[in-house]
Amino acid sequence: MNEHEMLFSHIRRFTTLSADKEELLSTRLKYKKIGRKDYLLQEFQICNAYYFVLSGCLRYYRNTNNGFEQILQFGIQGWWLSDFHSFENQKPSEYNIQAVHDTEILILYRSDYEELFDSVPELNSYFRLMMQRAYSASLKKIELLLCESAEERYLRFTRSFPEFVQTVPQYMLASFLGFTPQFLSMLRGKKDIIHTNNIK
Amino acid sequence: MNEHEMLFSHIRRFTTLSADKEELLSTRLKYKKIGRKDYLLQEFQICNAYYFVLSGCLRYYRNTNNGFEQILQFGIQGWWLSDFHSFENQKPSEYNIQAVHDTEILILYRSDYEELFDSVPELNSYFRLMMQRAYSASLKKIELLLCESAEERYLRFTRSFPEFVQTVPQYMLASFLGFTPQFLSMLRGKKDIIHTNNIK
Repeated sequence: MNEHEMLFSHIRRFTTLSADKEELLSTRLKYKKIGRKDYLLQEFQICNAYYFVLSGCLRYYRNTNNGFEQILQFGIQGWWLSDFHSFENQKPSEYNIQAVHDTEILILYRSDYEELFDSVPELNSYFRLMMQRAYSASLKKIELLLCESAEERYLRFTRSFPEFVQTVPQYMLASFLGFTPQFLSMLRGKKDIIHTNNIK
Repeated sequence: MNEHEMLFSHIRRFTTLSADKEELLSTRLKYKKIGRKDYLLQEFQICNAYYFVLSGCLRYYRNTNNGFEQILQFGIQGWWLSDFHSFENQKPSEYNIQAVHDTEILILYRSDYEELFDSVPELNSYFRLMMQRAYSASLKKIELLLCESAEERYLRFTRSFPEFVQTVPQYMLASFLGFTPQFLSMLRGKKDIIHTNNIK
């Protein structure tokens, strides 16, 4: 598959681009393959791109005052990731974007951004819907953090993303869900016991 | 001031609309004044509008399984509020949107939405940036929920929004910040003691 095709088929779910506009967009997107632990953004840098994940996984995290890495978002296949606040305001970022595994991405640089949104105005509608979905999803996460216990959050997440849970390091999953790796180990042990009892 | 002028001046901070397009948009926006505790959306209804707050305050909340009202968002002057997920997917909402005080709003109904975004494509760019800001803000809230103590969150919020804190009922503020009204009373008492000691 052409490296842009995954993105185009994603865009087609929300809007229609002419062949000319797909061609123009292709010339502005940069394909990149990065290795595990490579950074796309580090704190204090100004974020100058949007990243679309073709394969692999990115994590968006900050270093907290007590030396902990707090993951706020994962970027998996078909997901856009950036520090949109730093990108928009050209202020230094407080966050890091790093590859969890070897990861393939398409990069849309800020230097092409204004011109591209003028030439392909359909991208405004596409990204409006992307941002709206991301906003709704993050409001749902706030709700779960406020209303559910750590155990309920863990069970909900493993049911919703069973394959992802198998591939991401456990300490990262614990950070994302808001508890310690020790607490996660305890929950996993408990779940295995429940599972073993069920299949006896 | 014309009831649409506040919105137009907000839009002008992000994009440019011709006089014709402002005129067209005016004809699609419905002005409404609602009273304290009036609902714009109740759970199980399909959300069919975006609401722009001209004055007053809305709250976006859900009724939790244990009979608690969990507030996820306030809509204050210059803020758009909706259940964007229900709006987009035409699925029944899990949330309520209710006036905290007497509130003036502009309503953009779904029935006008597609046609309006076609006729005034600049709205795509405007709402893309609104959604991007809302998404960034909600990621920041997730970070604060995960990284800060309840007391740190309360102090940060009162410093950032001192007037808002004075006008919103305390049990709502407690819900929004993720703790009980009793805990909030304790924090307020503690803050008053600190304040009194400082001015002695």
